[in-house]
Amino acid sequence: MHHGTPEYPDCVPRPRSETARRAVLASMRRAVTGEGYEALTIERLAADAGVSKQTIYRWWPNKAAILGEALVEGALPAHIPLPHDTGDAAPDLAADLLAWLTESTRQLQRAEGLGVARALIAVTAADPEIGAALNDRLAAPIREWVQRRIDRAAEHGALRDGVDAILLADHLIAITAYAALTGAVHSEERLRGIVAHVMHGIVAPPR
Amino acid sequence: MHHGTPEYPDCVPRPRSETARRAVLASMRRAVTGEGYEALTIERLAADAGVSKQTIYRWWPNKAAILGEALVEGALPAHIPLPHDTGDAAPDLAADLLAWLTESTRQLQRAEGLGVARALIAVTAADPEIGAALNDRLAAPIREWVQRRIDRAAEHGALRDGVDAILLADHLIAITAYAALTGAVHSEERLRGIVAHVMHGIVAPPR
Repeated sequence: MHHGTPEYPDCVPRPRSETARRAVLASMRRAVTGEGYEALTIERLAADAGVSKQTIYRWWPNKAAILGEALVEGALPAHIPLPHDTGDAAPDLAADLLAWLTESTRQLQRAEGLGVARALIAVTAADPEIGAALNDRLAAPIREWVQRRIDRAAEHGALRDGVDAILLADHLIAITAYAALTGAVHSEERLRGIVAHVMHGIVAPPR
Repeated sequence: MHHGTPEYPDCVPRPRSETARRAVLASMRRAVTGEGYEALTIERLAADAGVSKQTIYRWWPNKAAILGEALVEGALPAHIPLPHDTGDAAPDLAADLLAWLTESTRQLQRAEGLGVARALIAVTAADPEIGAALNDRLAAPIREWVQRRIDRAAEHGALRDGVDAILLADHLIAITAYAALTGAVHSEERLRGIVAHVMHGIVAPPR
């Protein structure tokens, strides 16, 4: 089963077979959606993908790396669609935040979305470094979207001074991650309550 | 090593030895603070506690149940101290929320606090039902404390109509859980920013 080049039998890594690689990523996708990432073993992944364990260990150091590659390459759905920017008009931030929270709640009700979120949490709990890198990578587009919306709203004078877009984005991500962790499915009323808290805080307006 | 009662050798569960039980919970505490819950095996736990694997499996179905017992019985520190109620005066909610966030951040910087938070996340990712029950149990005193503070502040007319204490408590818990997950250590400035967002939202006050 071991092939090498005659010139450098030990030094040159064998190029990965694209077919086998895709088969492994597809197996990871099925596992995450089905039995769950946590219970998955490399043995099972290899059998399901029709490759040897040795092949997997030659290409990836552990299952976290396979999950990471599947997420980053889009073999697993990791992006919650972000509402479109609406040109130059003052953005309706409340409506946008509600749309994002509604979409993320909808995705957590699908086996695939919940499986991905749980896998991310499991890999982060098991390997904080890989987890932090993956979280950062997946959070980046959300942070950029929130930053653009916040900047636009600020230009229109709609925001309190000192509002921090990264802090706001991380709030939304934390709320979504915690819902994934506990399996909570927020009702539309609850989502509206979250948006009202985020927009207006809890303090009574001055009279 | 197997003892039973002569009358009911198979039917009556042998009473747990309190000494052995405490030894197992103490081992769980050391493991959570040291190598981490995720990497812990029942074999290692049994060896460290000086009991047999069979003894552990007779008393607990899995390591999640041992973690749960250690948390619920206080063998592991699971409570973030809550600021004291300050009698009948209008409470300084902002100061109280900042005190709670500061204390939870401080605990996540200690090996034991971070270990407990990571263990909770790992057990929830692996066994959502046990995890949700543990989270609910540990979140309950925080929710009750926030509810009392919110009720008091509302009596003084300090709060916006329709503020939801459970929603607020879950925000704080989500922010803390997400920090534990990603290993983020919030600076005091960041914590003040979080409190400002929670108190005042992001929308500019009417002029």
